[in-house]
Amino acid sequence: MAPQRLVEYADACPEVRAVYDDILATRKSDWINNFWKALANDPATLRRTWESVKQIMAPGALDPLTKELIYVAVSVTNQCSYCIASHIVSAKNKGMTDSMCHELMAVVGMANESNRLAAGYQVEIDEQFK
Amino acid sequence: MAPQRLVEYADACPEVRAVYDDILATRKSDWINNFWKALANDPATLRRTWESVKQIMAPGALDPLTKELIYVAVSVTNQCSYCIASHIVSAKNKGMTDSMCHELMAVVGMANESNRLAAGYQVEIDEQFK
Amino acid sequence: MAPQRLVEYADACPEVRAVYDDILATRKSDWINNFWKALANDPATLRRTWESVKQIMAPGALDPLTKELIYVAVSVTNQCSYCIASHIVSAKNKGMTDSMCHELMAVVGMANESNRLAAGYQVEIDEQFK
Amino acid sequence: MAPQRLVEYADACPEVRAVYDDILATRKSDWINNFWKALANDPATLRRTWESVKQIMAPGALDPLTKELIYVAVSVTNQCSYCIASHIVSAKNKGMTDSMCHELMAVVGMANESNRLAAGYQVEIDEQFK
Amino acid sequence: MAPQRLVEYADACPEVRAVYDDILATRKSDWINNFWKALANDPATLRRTWESVKQIMAPGALDPLTKELIYVAVSVTNQCSYCIASHIVSAKNKGMTDSMCHELMAVVGMANESNRLAAGYQVEIDEQFK
Amino acid sequence: MAPQRLVEYADACPEVRAVYDDILATRKSDWINNFWKALANDPATLRRTWESVKQIMAPGALDPLTKELIYVAVSVTNQCSYCIASHIVSAKNKGMTDSMCHELMAVVGMANESNRLAAGYQVEIDEQFK
Repeated sequence: MAPQRLVEYADACPEVRAVYDDILATRKSDWINNFWKALANDPATLRRTWESVKQIMAPGALDPLTKELIYVAVSVTNQCSYCIASHIVSAKNKGMTDSMCHELMAVVGMANESNRLAAGYQVEIDEQFK
Repeated sequence: MAPQRLVEYADACPEVRAVYDDILATRKSDWINNFWKALANDPATLRRTWESVKQIMAPGALDPLTKELIYVAVSVTNQCSYCIASHIVSAKNKGMTDSMCHELMAVVGMANESNRLAAGYQVEIDEQFK
Repeated sequence: MAPQRLVEYADACPEVRAVYDDILATRKSDWINNFWKALANDPATLRRTWESVKQIMAPGALDPLTKELIYVAVSVTNQCSYCIASHIVSAKNKGMTDSMCHELMAVVGMANESNRLAAGYQVEIDEQFK
Repeated sequence: MAPQRLVEYADACPEVRAVYDDILATRKSDWINNFWKALANDPATLRRTWESVKQIMAPGALDPLTKELIYVAVSVTNQCSYCIASHIVSAKNKGMTDSMCHELMAVVGMANESNRLAAGYQVEIDEQFK
Repeated sequence: MAPQRLVEYADACPEVRAVYDDILATRKSDWINNFWKALANDPATLRRTWESVKQIMAPGALDPLTKELIYVAVSVTNQCSYCIASHIVSAKNKGMTDSMCHELMAVVGMANESNRLAAGYQVEIDEQFK
Repeated sequence: MAPQRLVEYADACPEVRAVYDDILATRKSDWINNFWKALANDPATLRRTWESVKQIMAPGALDPLTKELIYVAVSVTNQCSYCIASHIVSAKNKGMTDSMCHELMAVVGMANESNRLAAGYQVEIDEQFK
């Protein structure tokens, strides 16, 4: 089996086109990235995932850039190369500078290290943290 | 073997006390949490880890709260219960509101989901992201 | 160092050939995939791994297709691109339709998300689940 | 900070109650488990997560039991103790026998092992799998 | 559902007892730890897992202590509290000193950090490593 | 965005050159691998990471080869292809034979499997391990 077919706009059914249109409008963009074109093989998942992303990543108590930084942090921790590449670009588009990117990676590295030190030393949770 | 002995201030060697003093002064706190007391069994790792944390978590291009949010995001992704508990408290101490915490968790959940959708659909990285 | 040499049938020692023969016969296939050719550098691991796979993936209380779906779910969660590619093909060969594949990915994504929500919200296990 | 407050039905706002009512009706159950009571601190996430779970776990090309098995497989791989405990119970409620549970665990263990053998031996993807 | 029943020696069927006897003899021990008592609910998995462990952990090109250190490193990386606790004890029984344990944890922490720095900086593999 | 620029020696600032010189001298090598050239975009992280690696990987209670084996074990568990490729080479340079490499992978695979069996069977930690 080849990796999933990518559903191009011209070939998309109306349900998929409606999501694509909303992605383009929401992001003020003129292209759809492969993640969505792959999900479009399953229109229900495409729609649900996009609706969730749109709702979750919208400005709220956290600003959109902070949310992108968090997204990158998770993707790096999971070693997901697609999401690292795409969300670093998204973060840059939302204002992440090189210095911010470097500090982000330093924190992600540090947290991954200390997570294992806490596990390896079998540290019990302090009463103050409960 | 019982889990690691916790090294209390009163029992600590001078090298460990020096680190504890710096933790207390830097954090303007009056107690040391178990993570450091466990690492103190290995003074070299205690010192190196604290120096790294102090340097990495200091204000820079990213503010300390944003760095804590990233720390929590990584810890949740790795399912490290100690670090989740301790860094949620740290984040609250640095200004994380309940709303910010809820949005943080939503983004972490979403990113973990989409990381797997990208992997499962074997999505290739767009030229625009390279 | 180059990645592991792949041991072709013609070059294999009798112990490796015996495993290859069993793979071909069990799977009613006419080729050996790279996973086994790489493991063949260590005949003991090749044999033990194949014997375990043959035993575990055989029809039992769960049918072979269900077992393949579970295999894919684990591989996607671990972001193992080789195993994703190979076991999606195996699942298709055992009857996985496109719709089943889409639903599989949706469940895997959802479970990865809710695992982190459970961790992030530090949810305690209900008495009813103990 | 104590772990998240659990929102009981009696204390819930109408938006949360509506979700709880739907959970109870959909599952033909008379209690709400802690996962939802914790998420209820953020009604938007509660609603979105429940709607997604309800849609994804409904009968489709895969039957509900198979979906639960996949959910457990992911949760075990991620070492999420809450989700392991709760979804094993769900799977049993949907018909998982002890034998099926044992085979599920064997496949999950095997897949986690072979994922690392594939990575460690740096196995390249066969042309036939592309 | 309560967590898995533990199968005690007195209640075990002959197939399980044979494995228990071999564990006790091989390890020159007088008790069986919970891991095996839980697996004993599925005698086939108990036997296969024990045979694999016995073969893999036996002295070979790597000595048994080194193998235990590797086992702990994996378990810490996966945040598996049971395996961390049990294999730290095994490693101590095979000669791991406190200093060795501390260095082990330092390497595990460092590797987890640098794995993410490599991913986050999207580092391409040098020709010399291929 | 293209992946991180690699900072070559000729283009490096004095702070980066000082680290590169120390890497070359410490390793008695005549080239710098891409990991460090990527980190050099952030001289503070380059220096801190190198100082930590140099300290942690130096001979101590554990010999350098054992430390490399542990490094590989973590990298394989995390599916980090860069670190797998680079640290397998480092391990070979420090004396890892093919047989040792094969046994390493077998232990890593086994540990990843048993970590999930322990989680899936919800095994409680024995008193003797506490």
